[in-house]
Amino acid sequence: MLIIDFNYNFALMNEILIRKAKISDMATVLDLIKELAEFEKEAKSVSINVNDLIKDGFSDNPKFTCLVADINNSVVGMALFYGRYSTWKGRTLHLEDLIVKKAFRGKGIGKKLYRKFIQIAKVENVRRAEWVALDWNINAIKFYKNSGAKVLSDWKTIQIDKKAINNYLVKK
Amino acid sequence: MLIIDFNYNFALMNEILIRKAKISDMATVLDLIKELAEFEKEAKSVSINVNDLIKDGFSDNPKFTCLVADINNSVVGMALFYGRYSTWKGRTLHLEDLIVKKAFRGKGIGKKLYRKFIQIAKVENVRRAEWVALDWNINAIKFYKNSGAKVLSDWKTIQIDKKAINNYLVKK
Repeated sequence: MLIIDFNYNFALMNEILIRKAKISDMATVLDLIKELAEFEKEAKSVSINVNDLIKDGFSDNPKFTCLVADINNSVVGMALFYGRYSTWKGRTLHLEDLIVKKAFRGKGIGKKLYRKFIQIAKVENVRRAEWVALDWNINAIKFYKNSGAKVLSDWKTIQIDKKAINNYLVKK
Repeated sequence: MLIIDFNYNFALMNEILIRKAKISDMATVLDLIKELAEFEKEAKSVSINVNDLIKDGFSDNPKFTCLVADINNSVVGMALFYGRYSTWKGRTLHLEDLIVKKAFRGKGIGKKLYRKFIQIAKVENVRRAEWVALDWNINAIKFYKNSGAKVLSDWKTIQIDKKAINNYLVKK
């Protein structure tokens, strides 16, 4: 009996289901977002809340698609993406975040989420998928390169926040 | 008469109208895209055609918004943008391209297009607007910094193209 139980639990433990996120997953997804922001030394940069995620992801015109990695009905990872538009390539997909809960890393869960995202890029028939990574996150960059992706070294990301937007517009 | 004519033309020449692009502008917009790609030493990277731009920008669910700079009913510049989603900030705007025809540079047309984009970011009430620039395009980066935008130096852009997507998925 014990052995059967053990095998049963073990099998369940290893059954990683990658599925589309539901509204009820958004609280856990926000926890994952905050966990990644801490890893990236930017914990204070997270301004959104659960209601934003629900409103923006599950309305008539959703702003993103979210996949989750589900083990025993528990969400342990997520991948969040949306469409972009390249004036060179046309429709593309952008992977905004791919996060696996710390305690569940090294089990291939991130790879499953990534693979599902790449499968969706194929189904969507886009000419390109893209994302950004911090230059010191060597392991992630190595993983992406091994998958066939290219790291662009000469493009800089430029951002203007709400305060600077307002400041700019009051200047003539 | 000549003087009146001169003044009349001069006034018209200087009247730069920033307006939403129409379907009939897309051929000129594609020319501008190709001109920028040449400047960026990537002329061969432009895979899209006029029909893609019309289908993707003017359908029920448009993938982008395009502004044009119009002088005497002639399009001499454009700014193309769309919504993105940050898991830190929520809805954001992304400026994919801002292009002014070579012969019309240095006349403040780019600034007018940029300002209109920033105004739209304010109206859309996004917490952030962003774009990328080539690191050797010093003048553009200086302009953006002066406007209050920040250049992020530690984020790398990573891209996977259609061929690499297919290759990755055939591997186990």
